[in-house]
This record gives sequence, structure tokens and C-alpha cells, in this order.
Amino acid sequence: MSELIEKAKNVKAASYLLANLSSTVKNDGLAKMAELLLENEELILTANRKDVENYQIKNNNKALIDRLTLTPKRIKEMADSLYTLISLPDPIGEVLSMWKRPNGLTIGQKRVPIGVIGIIYEARPNVTVDAAGLCLKSGNAVLLKGGSEAIHSNSAIIGVLKEAFRSSGIPEGAVELIESTNRETTLEMMKLNQYIDVLIPRGGAGLIQTVVQHATVPVIETGTGNCHVYVCEDADIEMAENIIVNAKTSRPAVCNAAETLLVDERIAERFLPHAIEILRNKGVEIRGCEKVQAIVSDVTTATEEDWSTEYLDYILAVKVVRNIDEAIAHINQYGTGHSEAIITSGYDHSQKFLQEVDAAAVYVNASTRFTDGAEFGFGAEIGISNQKLHARGPVGLKELTTVKYIIFGNGQIRE
Amino acid sequence: MSELIEKAKNVKAASYLLANLSSTVKNDGLAKMAELLLENEELILTANRKDVENYQIKNNNKALIDRLTLTPKRIKEMADSLYTLISLPDPIGEVLSMWKRPNGLTIGQKRVPIGVIGIIYEARPNVTVDAAGLCLKSGNAVLLKGGSEAIHSNSAIIGVLKEAFRSSGIPEGAVELIESTNRETTLEMMKLNQYIDVLIPRGGAGLIQTVVQHATVPVIETGTGNCHVYVCEDADIEMAENIIVNAKTSRPAVCNAAETLLVDERIAERFLPHAIEILRNKGVEIRGCEKVQAIVSDVTTATEEDWSTEYLDYILAVKVVRNIDEAIAHINQYGTGHSEAIITSGYDHSQKFLQEVDAAAVYVNASTRFTDGAEFGFGAEIGISNQKLHARGPVGLKELTTVKYIIFGNGQIRE
Repeated sequence: MSELIEKAKNVKAASYLLANLSSTVKNDGLAKMAELLLENEELILTANRKDVENYQIKNNNKALIDRLTLTPKRIKEMADSLYTLISLPDPIGEVLSMWKRPNGLTIGQKRVPIGVIGIIYEARPNVTVDAAGLCLKSGNAVLLKGGSEAIHSNSAIIGVLKEAFRSSGIPEGAVELIESTNRETTLEMMKLNQYIDVLIPRGGAGLIQTVVQHATVPVIETGTGNCHVYVCEDADIEMAENIIVNAKTSRPAVCNAAETLLVDERIAERFLPHAIEILRNKGVEIRGCEKVQAIVSDVTTATEEDWSTEYLDYILAVKVVRNIDEAIAHINQYGTGHSEAIITSGYDHSQKFLQEVDAAAVYVNASTRFTDGAEFGFGAEIGISNQKLHARGPVGLKELTTVKYIIFGNGQIRE
Repeated sequence: MSELIEKAKNVKAASYLLANLSSTVKNDGLAKMAELLLENEELILTANRKDVENYQIKNNNKALIDRLTLTPKRIKEMADSLYTLISLPDPIGEVLSMWKRPNGLTIGQKRVPIGVIGIIYEARPNVTVDAAGLCLKSGNAVLLKGGSEAIHSNSAIIGVLKEAFRSSGIPEGAVELIESTNRETTLEMMKLNQYIDVLIPRGGAGLIQTVVQHATVPVIETGTGNCHVYVCEDADIEMAENIIVNAKTSRPAVCNAAETLLVDERIAERFLPHAIEILRNKGVEIRGCEKVQAIVSDVTTATEEDWSTEYLDYILAVKVVRNIDEAIAHINQYGTGHSEAIITSGYDHSQKFLQEVDAAAVYVNASTRFTDGAEFGFGAEIGISNQKLHARGPVGLKELTTVKYIIFGNGQIRE
């Protein structure tokens, strides 16, 4: 039996046991995970140094090295994220509703774990801990396939987590890491419908699209955010400036950062010159439509491609629109359905935007940067879904559950 | 532009308008659909006769001919199903919860349509009306691909539905039928992530598996039901007999019919001889394990394959199990996660079964046949999902929706 199938079977078997664990056992397990991660800091850092050195021999992608590298501070953050999970309510077992039918059957809809979650991710060892923690708290078993660059770090971490499980009465198969680093194994994992209930890719657009294209296991697609801020004709100009600066520059590399600014033509001349100046002072490159260029002459031309690009960088596309209808149409055409904001003082404009924009999170007078599990008050999350099936927006503990109908009869048969 | 892309674009464009229709407009549209279907009965029946005749020239699958053939009674039933939809509450616009964050942001979770639903189905013209009605009521646009055998019937029905939409202020693109009957078009449709938000295959296991294997659009998998009835050691024998007879024979061809009977060894000798006699009198072929054969000598041997087979026929696999643990393990191994029942008088047994069986619907002392939108009190449904993502159990109006976060700020930016 291949490593993949053997581990998939372990995880599947463990999933039935996990579904029945009490909150106390799960929380004790999370605490033990945190404790042992801190205790084994040196072991984990040693393994991580091996990964970083191996990577650096042949490559020099600084962003990747940064994501790959662990430090005592990062290990402390991993442990902290587990303590946060302990403090969150256990989603499992809640009966969402229960009703009685005319024939006497009582039907309840109960929240239960999904079962087995497969996570395919890049060279970020912290995801190993995040995913294991979220899945344990939500009663799911998890099969992990991390980036090959992080294999030693991940193996060391998984060893520690399994030790925590052993000493907490949690089945060890609750988490398994696929150590094989060949691409065929990953592709095979995407088609293991027999063992895996849902796949969640975590990483860049390339990884996510590979999973969407090849998986037969249902996928929760996360992360692509081509987000817009629309400055309506009646916007408070100072508020609009603050919000676009925040949405673009507070953390450009994340999915809830703004990529395009839309400005109503009735406010463009008053708003754009100063807004562009502030953005440029923050290091943002502006690419604009002709109307933008007519107002601020030295702006580069935005092409059709710019409207659909998630820069994840200090670049902002800017377009002047005739009215709110054009703004909404632009967003619905080019956006990825992630986070969209309007800045307005008009009631009708706010209502129209909230109603007609098709996205996971639609904001009035706030930065798109708030689309995040912690900011929404959900605590931890495994990503932001911008698909419509199952989970839309932050994927937290509740979104890692499904329902089961429980039906209480006393001999009912159907006529 | 191909027919597929052109119609997919129409449907996508219509979906934005549909999301904003009031319940009144949608209900008026449903009434008009029903009215015009009845008025155009002759036109539809004529088209249907052409389909049936074309099919009969080369084939003689009686079940297919039965499903394909329309009658005045069936058209009346289609119209009635639309009137049922009018009577159901509109799921759209409900704000499921709304809360305020420490920074003053107010966040609401609002129920909205999914957008565009693609339905791939077999030669059942009634699905054309069911799907169009459910999607309209839930604010979704729908792209239909029906079985080629029903093409004239479906075209006639769609013509009538579009006329109803025109006269009700509903965009005509709210429903489109792909008339091309080649397989490549269907495969292409399964990968139209740009235009289609979810695919729902309706039909046999072969169709569903084809969609699961080839689709990149998220799929709601419906319909495969290898359902079990477990007669516990402490069951009321008469109740158990009534339930297994009902679960197996009231409608063997549907997904919530029982396929395997599990009997505790402590009750097997008292229960099996009479139960098997009744089942056989109803025309059921029994295939049993060795222990069953030891009790009722002329039972055919059940093979490993029998335990995983959805017969959809007058055949029942029967297995004697040591205890409830073996019953639950058997169900979780061989079942398809659809509908599972225990017959017991024991509190602990009922609780254990409800907790540990991993299925969409778990019954105590009732027939598996109740897993159905109408029986659950949801009204209409488009199928029974036995996947865990998004919808599990009957897929009714609520399951054809997603959520959108609406966020009310007054200038908040993220630190």
C-alpha cells in the first residue's frame, strides 16, 4: 500500500473517533500541542534550518525563504493560535433546529464534523499547526500535503503533534502528513473521494487553480481577491482617502487588499489629485484609465488586463466611472467576489451597493482589509472562501462542519 | 460564439437581475409558468410524442420510455409543483445574524442566491420545470442540459417558460436550455467556472460520477443511497418488520429505499424467518451471509459486492451482526452516507446509533423512506445530497442559496 493510501485510511478511521470526542478532550489536546511545540522548539528549529539551507543551495526567492523560516517568535505564535482555539466555542453537537412533522416524526438538524479534510499548501510550516488545530477543534481528521521545501520542518512538527495526541487520548491518525514530495502523489490525493470529504488548498493562485482543475474531491476555494474601493459622488473625501490608503497599503500581499480604485466622475477632480499623491508617497504605482490621465497627467495607462489583476503589490489600477451602476457592473465583471467597498454618504447608494454587488463581503464606508476570521469575530480561520458553495467569506470552525439530520420515530412508515 | 457560451453568458447576466427580484414578481412568474404549461399542453404533448417515437425506433428501455413520456396528468403535476413553490417562503434576503464589533463595524450575514446553477439531467422532461421553478423562487438563473432523448419536449417546455418570464418581468435568460446534444458540449459545460457557480447532476449513478469526475465547477452530488436498516437486539419485532418492508418495497427504485438489513445475532432467530417470509411474499429476493443461511436455509449467498450495491430493485442483502458496534462499522464502511435506521427500544442504543453513524439522515424507529424534501417539511427539492459540502440531505430552496456578509462602517480602517 502506498504511503498516501495508508495515511488516508488512518485518517478516515480516526475521523469516526474524533467525531465523538468531548470538547474537554479536544481542548486538552490543543493545550498539549501548544506545550509540546514550545518544549520542542530546538528540534523544530533544527529541522527548519535544514529546509532553509537545502532551499538556499539552489534558489533565492526571498519571499519564500521568509515564509519558510521559523523563529522562536513564530513558534510562540503557533502555540498562541492553539490557545486562541481553546477559547473558542466548540461548534460540534449544536442542534440548529428541531421540529415535529404531522406524522409524529421529530426531525433535528445537528452540526457534525465534515470528517476528513485534505489540506494542500505551500512552504509555510505554520499552516501545519493551524490546520491541525482548527481540524481538531472542529472534530475533523486532517491529511496534510505541504510544500516539499518545508518537509523537514513539517515532519518535525507532526512528530510533536502526534506525541501531544498520544498523551491526550486523541487518535494519532487525527493528523497525517504525506511525506512523499512527488507531484503524482498530490494529484492522486485530489481524487481520493473515498477517504477525503473536502480539499482546501492554501497558497497562491497557481496552487489553487491546480487543485480546482484536477480535484474530484469537493474543494473549498480560497484566497483570490481582486478587491475594489468605489468612491461615490457623495463620499466624504477624507474618509475615502483614508480607506483606499489602508485598503491598498496596510498589507498589499494579502487577498483582502484593494487592487482597483473606482471613482465617480462627479468627484474625480476633487478626489484624485490628492489621493494619488498620498498613495504615491506610500510607494504605490498608479495605473489609470484615460479619464484619470486627464486629471493626473503622469499616470501610466491601465490595460484591460489590469482590471482583472490581483497585484498583491504596491500597484493600484484606477478608473473613473460614470455612476454607481457602472461601478457595480465593473466589480461584478472583473472582481473575484471577495471584498468590495463603497464610500458614500447616500442611503440609496449604500443600499444599492450592498444589494447588487456579488461578493463574499460588501462594505459601506470601511476598508476591505477587515475580511478576516479574527476581525469578523470568528476567531481562527483557514482562509477566505470566495466560492459560493458551502462557505463564503472567512472559513472558521463553523465552516469546517456539516449537518446530519437526526430523526426520532416510533414506528413510522411511509405510505 | 458557441451555443453553450452564448447561453451561459445570458444566464450569468440574468442572474444579477434575478437576485434583486421581489417575492411578488417571482411568485407571479411561477403562477404564469403553471398557467401557460396547462394552456400549451397540446404543444408540449406533440413535441413529447416526437421524442418518444424517435426513441422507440431504435430502443426499447421501458423504464426510460416511462420517464420520458408526458401525459396530461404529468403536465398537471408539473403545474401543481409550481403552485407548491408559490406557497413556500422566499429564502432570499433573510439576515441570519448581525453583530457589532468592538471597532464599531456592524456585520450581517445575509442569505442571497447562489447565482447560476447548472443542471445536467437525463430524459425526464419534468425536471426542466422543477429546476426552473426552484431556481426562480430561490433567485438563481439556471442553465439546463437535459438528456438528448427529451430534446423536443424540453425545447417546447422552455419556449413556454420563457413566454411566462417575458410576461412577468423576469429576464428571459433566467433559464436557458442547451440544445446541442453532443457529449463535448456537456463536458465543456462542466468546466465553465467563469459562468456557472454550481452544478447539480440529476440522474443515475453513471451520470453523477461522470460529472464528479470531469467537473471543475463545484458539484452538489445527489442521489446514491445504499441505505441500511439495523434491527437491534431489543427491537419491537412487529415494528421492525413493518419498517424493513416499507423501506425495501414501498418504492424500491428510489435512493432512500433500504438495500441491506442488518440483524443483531441475539434477535436473528426470532426475527428473520418471518421477516424474510413477508419480504419474499412481496417479491423480494434475499441474499444473506452464512449466519442468515443457517437460520433460513434457502437464502442465496451474499458476496462482498452485495454489501456495497445499491440494487434499486426487489433485492435485499441481509447480514447478522454481533452487536451495534459491528452494525455501525458495517454502515460506515459500505454505506453511501444517505439514510440509515435503527430499530430499538433501548435509549443507549438509539443515542449511540444517532451519534456514530455517518450519514445525511439517521433514523430511530422509522423507515429510511422519509428522506425527502416534502416529508421533512421543506416543500420542493432538487435531490438528496449525500456529500458533506454545502448541502447534506434534501436540497430545497434554502440549499440553493449562499450568504453574503454586509458590513456597515463609518470610516473604519484596519491597523
